[in-house]
Amino acid sequence: MRPCEKIIYEIRPPYFIITLNSAQNYNALSYDDYLYLTSVLEVSNNNEDCCFTVLQSTGSFFSSGADFNSVPIESSNDESHTERKKKWLENFLCKNQYITNAFINHDKILVACLNGPVVGLSAAIVFLCDLVYCNNINNIYFYFPFTKLGLSCEGSVSVTLPMKLSRNQSYQKLLFSEQIMGKEVLNTVINKDFKLSKDATVDTFNAMVLEELSQNTKNVYLPSCLNMKKLLKTQALVNSLNLANSMEVHGALPFWINGEPQRRFKVLREEKMKVSRKSRL
Amino acid sequence: MRPCEKIIYEIRPPYFIITLNSAQNYNALSYDDYLYLTSVLEVSNNNEDCCFTVLQSTGSFFSSGADFNSVPIESSNDESHTERKKKWLENFLCKNQYITNAFINHDKILVACLNGPVVGLSAAIVFLCDLVYCNNINNIYFYFPFTKLGLSCEGSVSVTLPMKLSRNQSYQKLLFSEQIMGKEVLNTVINKDFKLSKDATVDTFNAMVLEELSQNTKNVYLPSCLNMKKLLKTQALVNSLNLANSMEVHGALPFWINGEPQRRFKVLREEKMKVSRKSRL
Amino acid sequence: MRPCEKIIYEIRPPYFIITLNSAQNYNALSYDDYLYLTSVLEVSNNNEDCCFTVLQSTGSFFSSGADFNSVPIESSNDESHTERKKKWLENFLCKNQYITNAFINHDKILVACLNGPVVGLSAAIVFLCDLVYCNNINNIYFYFPFTKLGLSCEGSVSVTLPMKLSRNQSYQKLLFSEQIMGKEVLNTVINKDFKLSKDATVDTFNAMVLEELSQNTKNVYLPSCLNMKKLLKTQALVNSLNLANSMEVHGALPFWINGEPQRRFKVLREEKMKVSRKSRL
Amino acid sequence: MRPCEKIIYEIRPPYFIITLNSAQNYNALSYDDYLYLTSVLEVSNNNEDCCFTVLQSTGSFFSSGADFNSVPIESSNDESHTERKKKWLENFLCKNQYITNAFINHDKILVACLNGPVVGLSAAIVFLCDLVYCNNINNIYFYFPFTKLGLSCEGSVSVTLPMKLSRNQSYQKLLFSEQIMGKEVLNTVINKDFKLSKDATVDTFNAMVLEELSQNTKNVYLPSCLNMKKLLKTQALVNSLNLANSMEVHGALPFWINGEPQRRFKVLREEKMKVSRKSRL
Amino acid sequence: MRPCEKIIYEIRPPYFIITLNSAQNYNALSYDDYLYLTSVLEVSNNNEDCCFTVLQSTGSFFSSGADFNSVPIESSNDESHTERKKKWLENFLCKNQYITNAFINHDKILVACLNGPVVGLSAAIVFLCDLVYCNNINNIYFYFPFTKLGLSCEGSVSVTLPMKLSRNQSYQKLLFSEQIMGKEVLNTVINKDFKLSKDATVDTFNAMVLEELSQNTKNVYLPSCLNMKKLLKTQALVNSLNLANSMEVHGALPFWINGEPQRRFKVLREEKMKVSRKSRL
Amino acid sequence: MRPCEKIIYEIRPPYFIITLNSAQNYNALSYDDYLYLTSVLEVSNNNEDCCFTVLQSTGSFFSSGADFNSVPIESSNDESHTERKKKWLENFLCKNQYITNAFINHDKILVACLNGPVVGLSAAIVFLCDLVYCNNINNIYFYFPFTKLGLSCEGSVSVTLPMKLSRNQSYQKLLFSEQIMGKEVLNTVINKDFKLSKDATVDTFNAMVLEELSQNTKNVYLPSCLNMKKLLKTQALVNSLNLANSMEVHGALPFWINGEPQRRFKVLREEKMKVSRKSRL
Repeated sequence: MRPCEKIIYEIRPPYFIITLNSAQNYNALSYDDYLYLTSVLEVSNNNEDCCFTVLQSTGSFFSSGADFNSVPIESSNDESHTERKKKWLENFLCKNQYITNAFINHDKILVACLNGPVVGLSAAIVFLCDLVYCNNINNIYFYFPFTKLGLSCEGSVSVTLPMKLSRNQSYQKLLFSEQIMGKEVLNTVINKDFKLSKDATVDTFNAMVLEELSQNTKNVYLPSCLNMKKLLKTQALVNSLNLANSMEVHGALPFWINGEPQRRFKVLREEKMKVSRKSRL
Repeated sequence: MRPCEKIIYEIRPPYFIITLNSAQNYNALSYDDYLYLTSVLEVSNNNEDCCFTVLQSTGSFFSSGADFNSVPIESSNDESHTERKKKWLENFLCKNQYITNAFINHDKILVACLNGPVVGLSAAIVFLCDLVYCNNINNIYFYFPFTKLGLSCEGSVSVTLPMKLSRNQSYQKLLFSEQIMGKEVLNTVINKDFKLSKDATVDTFNAMVLEELSQNTKNVYLPSCLNMKKLLKTQALVNSLNLANSMEVHGALPFWINGEPQRRFKVLREEKMKVSRKSRL
Repeated sequence: MRPCEKIIYEIRPPYFIITLNSAQNYNALSYDDYLYLTSVLEVSNNNEDCCFTVLQSTGSFFSSGADFNSVPIESSNDESHTERKKKWLENFLCKNQYITNAFINHDKILVACLNGPVVGLSAAIVFLCDLVYCNNINNIYFYFPFTKLGLSCEGSVSVTLPMKLSRNQSYQKLLFSEQIMGKEVLNTVINKDFKLSKDATVDTFNAMVLEELSQNTKNVYLPSCLNMKKLLKTQALVNSLNLANSMEVHGALPFWINGEPQRRFKVLREEKMKVSRKSRL
Repeated sequence: MRPCEKIIYEIRPPYFIITLNSAQNYNALSYDDYLYLTSVLEVSNNNEDCCFTVLQSTGSFFSSGADFNSVPIESSNDESHTERKKKWLENFLCKNQYITNAFINHDKILVACLNGPVVGLSAAIVFLCDLVYCNNINNIYFYFPFTKLGLSCEGSVSVTLPMKLSRNQSYQKLLFSEQIMGKEVLNTVINKDFKLSKDATVDTFNAMVLEELSQNTKNVYLPSCLNMKKLLKTQALVNSLNLANSMEVHGALPFWINGEPQRRFKVLREEKMKVSRKSRL
Repeated sequence: MRPCEKIIYEIRPPYFIITLNSAQNYNALSYDDYLYLTSVLEVSNNNEDCCFTVLQSTGSFFSSGADFNSVPIESSNDESHTERKKKWLENFLCKNQYITNAFINHDKILVACLNGPVVGLSAAIVFLCDLVYCNNINNIYFYFPFTKLGLSCEGSVSVTLPMKLSRNQSYQKLLFSEQIMGKEVLNTVINKDFKLSKDATVDTFNAMVLEELSQNTKNVYLPSCLNMKKLLKTQALVNSLNLANSMEVHGALPFWINGEPQRRFKVLREEKMKVSRKSRL
Repeated sequence: MRPCEKIIYEIRPPYFIITLNSAQNYNALSYDDYLYLTSVLEVSNNNEDCCFTVLQSTGSFFSSGADFNSVPIESSNDESHTERKKKWLENFLCKNQYITNAFINHDKILVACLNGPVVGLSAAIVFLCDLVYCNNINNIYFYFPFTKLGLSCEGSVSVTLPMKLSRNQSYQKLLFSEQIMGKEVLNTVINKDFKLSKDATVDTFNAMVLEELSQNTKNVYLPSCLNMKKLLKTQALVNSLNLANSMEVHGALPFWINGEPQRRFKVLREEKMKVSRKSRL
């Protein structure tokens, strides 16, 4: 594995600790970053001494999701239907699906340490984690703005959301691109709120989670824990997540081919630039 | 489609608005009414401009369920087992199952605007809706008096109730024909309580829901919404609802053949008549 | 059926009442006791007059789970791998699985009357019941100390826990062998808290539950109730419970063959003896 | 059970023998007849002494399927969409589905004694039988002329045909309404060809099958046989047959509402009348 | 749709006829060609007048599968694990899976006219067709040389092969990369052998199949046919094919990352060049 | 692993060769032997160099199934229902189920070399193998005399038999305890008949199979082969086999408790003794 500055990892058995390390852009991740993340997951999976894969972050956001700038710019109108299909198969479908799959199939216990909000595909990944801790629940929201971006679900959210938020609330949140506040998913997503004050650093929070895990596993037989994961990750669940994942990306493909998400991304970028230009004045 | 006074509809894209318009009998519906409703659903399904099918009502009840008077009177004792079977296949099984199926398979986003309590098959239908709003949650209850009527579940309630109310509470409510109060299913069934005062009319409430939907869908790409419905309506869910529906009506058939529901309906009608006679005095 | 002092039953149609009657050892049950319990369940299943199978207990615990003393003492190191496999197939796997199956497949409505905490396999059984009442929710906890004992899940808990406590909370409770407090599963497990004072006897509580059931079923058609059970006990649910049950015991077998649970049980027994010796001084 | 001339039955434990007794019209059956048949199946199911339900016939056809004359004549054009829907729900959907269900769910071992060809819903029923014997395989064909009649599959044939004839051959037979010759399904449908000469009467054949069954079950423990049926009738199979059955009839309903099958039946009746008029001249 | 020389199509309702038109290279197809083919399938799906999508070919092979030359040349050893993963996600996984999906989900009746052998992904596609005709069964073989190429299954063959050839024969054919002769799958894959002599041209054969289809559908109600496809394409089948497809490509990805297929392709290309060089001498 | 004379194994990568070595009693196996066999399977599973687990035998039978003499003698009539249940849980249910599970879940490619007939649980195991070769198909039969022994299915035969022999033939064979001749399952069970003459020894045959495997895997990438097994052993198949296995043994338990199999085994033993006494005279 080659080092990467935006995502770093450390092996402290039984913990395999992955840190999103790009606070300056709110841990927005390009598809290349996400793919690197899946390679790191493989390292954890193959490490016999590790039982927990812990996802930590830095700065004010856990992750703001897929990086706008990694979405290819819409080129000439000359592209045929098949060429556009090929483009989005390569640049969207295969990567989105593969990344989600890597989290669905991971064998170690997945722990997320939420230091702040989380958006899009990254939020979907947190919904696939087994244990989720947060520094202060009032800081936390999950945001799936798919309908506003002319997209479809991602990250098997069409299965995980109804499991954690009831079916009707899921319709509300997904159809209207409404934020899900931390408190709405206390217990179903968030296992514990550390209720830290604003002064507490992210490093403190991350350290506290690891300390908590250490306390909790003191008299515990770790092979029993890995077996628990195996039992709770039933094949029926894995299959329904895989199918949803496949349905989701295939459902979104025609939107990409038709160009709706690109048009909406372009508007967002322009708005952002206007804002940043103004703020510079 | 021929007009019908008890159920009216209006097309205001992207909304297809259906109104139960029989306040005087608490929107009790005969099987003929329910079947007309399924025909209206088809019109919505085939209308490309519509994305939401909105169910509204009038008066103090959303719907008091199946109309007693549409249940055939038990005739002579001469009927053979096969004749009685045929009678209840025609008058109960096929219609009950078909109506439920129409809601299970509907492609547009189903919205229910609860202006008051809802009973029986109508309540089952509300449990199949994707978004449910109410004028004031204290007015709302759901009532499935199947065990009191000598019946079995209807409307795939044996699947939807455990999904929305936990399995053990479902046993409690179904076995003992207990009302489910609005508050018990806030979030899992009811998306939002408009908390209207008693003075607010049903028309006001219905208008407010439509206004809310308009606000919520302002920047939203509607094809993404229809795709969400497609994803959340997983084939696994549809199959389990269909199987439950089939199991339910086939389970109830022997009760109808044996005459228990009819005996209990008769008692209820007589009690009602006594009450109305008394109240006239 | 031969009488047994630790588990007694009484037939009071429509109730089939089973009482755990070993208050002095907190209703710890040996595998022989559990198997006797399954034979009693069969009697209830075959009794046409009974509609409800009611599980009651005595003393301060509903049941403290499997009796330590019924676990075979680890013998000589001479045993081959196959001999040890055989031993634990006979003494653990087959019985654990059979007992769980008996509750999964039971046809009558299963009612548990919780007079106090419940542990291990007994707690798993309560999670398989359809209606659960408690004397005072502050007295109640459920405890699945599988990871502390070097075991795996039992009693299909890997399916029932996520259904009743959310998936993430289930990981927390199972991985770290944390107690589940009564209040955490009010509604999803516990249908009603009778809020009795400390002075109220267990007999009073048990009588009150039966009185409540009588009130609730007054105008109810009992065959409708049995049909409800049939519908809610969907084949999909039964299959997933059966598969989980099988996966659980097969997953635990290597731990038994390897000796981890025995080592941990031994430590617990020795600690217990020290405690009791001290308390005698 | 009231006697019926077209379908008679006899109880000769462990055999419950049902005979189609309407040789003059090739054992064409009205929906009333098929419903009577389901009532007879119930009698067998409830008879503890019976282990085999044996379907026999008379004359040259086992059964020519649904009787043309039991299909309602298309009335005035005044009927609304909803009225036509109601009409075909009552006259087609509910009965077709119920009859198929009765055979899918039957608990005894279903034996068919084929004395000749079998058509439509009756052929579908034979495909749901467990053991099928024929007098002479050269006399036998199965005919599902659904596409020629403007219909869809019936009797769960969309599942049973691919199981017994391969998926591609099923397309061929169903799409093009091609007869399936006995030899094509020797072993997969037909267990044994008695290879009787043309002189052998149907009574002789029927007696020979019963004698064969007697020989085969001589040293057999009959409760083991009923258990075999329970095991081979897996819930997965029953569910897929039920779902197919429901899909099939719901898929055909629009054709009935639209009138295609009626138009085609009318043409067939007129052709038949022309033929019979000619043959009288 | 832009024209493409290697794959042409013609609309002759109810037939949508696609012809593989690259006889000189045995109709080897690049991923670009296969993707163009999926776009053509969409055109057929959206054409309301078409009921059958007919796949024809030219020359001596139906299709020799994926074109060697479209597989990227292995570049520098500098590529990181993540870069190689990305490369094969884009160049193999996403396209292979998408192409298979397009055939699995196609709504029209898929007809293949086999004029000769068919290999690899193209053979997998023929196994997904509903009706398969061949000019002369002695010319036909199917070849899945996945184990010889260091690959895994493709095209959902891990599900379709056991359905059509028995599970044990599938192991034999797949493990040992053995050809499947036409006669081995007569009936289960091949619906009819036209038994043409060697002199008969492919054009003659293709015309005969269309003539046969015309004859077979003469009195048939075409909407019934499309409904048949809907029924036989059960959701359970589609799901299992989709899951298999996903499992297959994900299973092969590590082989591509590790470089085994590339090494074996390279050897094959070199052998081919040697042969062609020799044959030129 | 301790050595065992009746079952020996040898590691010749990529082959793990297991030989049933008890020709004198026709390779009848006690439950202890079968359990030893599962331990040997584990050794193969954990051996990274092995890709094929090859089951060979000796003498004239591949295996005559479970050894009569390992079935416990029915003791006093004093045993309570629960005691008898316990006895058969330990001596029948848990072992039968565990052994079957071991073959269902095995990761290497299972090869059976049939030198002669195979009966009961051993025959069920052969039906779970991936590749089956025989010395001469005329010598081979499979025999499942469950109904004659007062038993139920074993070894997931209720799923594997319909997969390999059609559903109706399975009923015939299972209900009437009829032998299945080798020719009836050529291709679906038996991959290749070596057509050896009577003079050829079993050793020759076993050597020829290994030679054949060597030839067949010459240019094959072995990791691709193991991946094939993974793909063909779909989770859906494994689940249905596991469920069947569980249903089968639980269905048979009441027969064992009731004593029917024991009575029939006793008769068989006595008949055998009479025969052997006669033959000694």
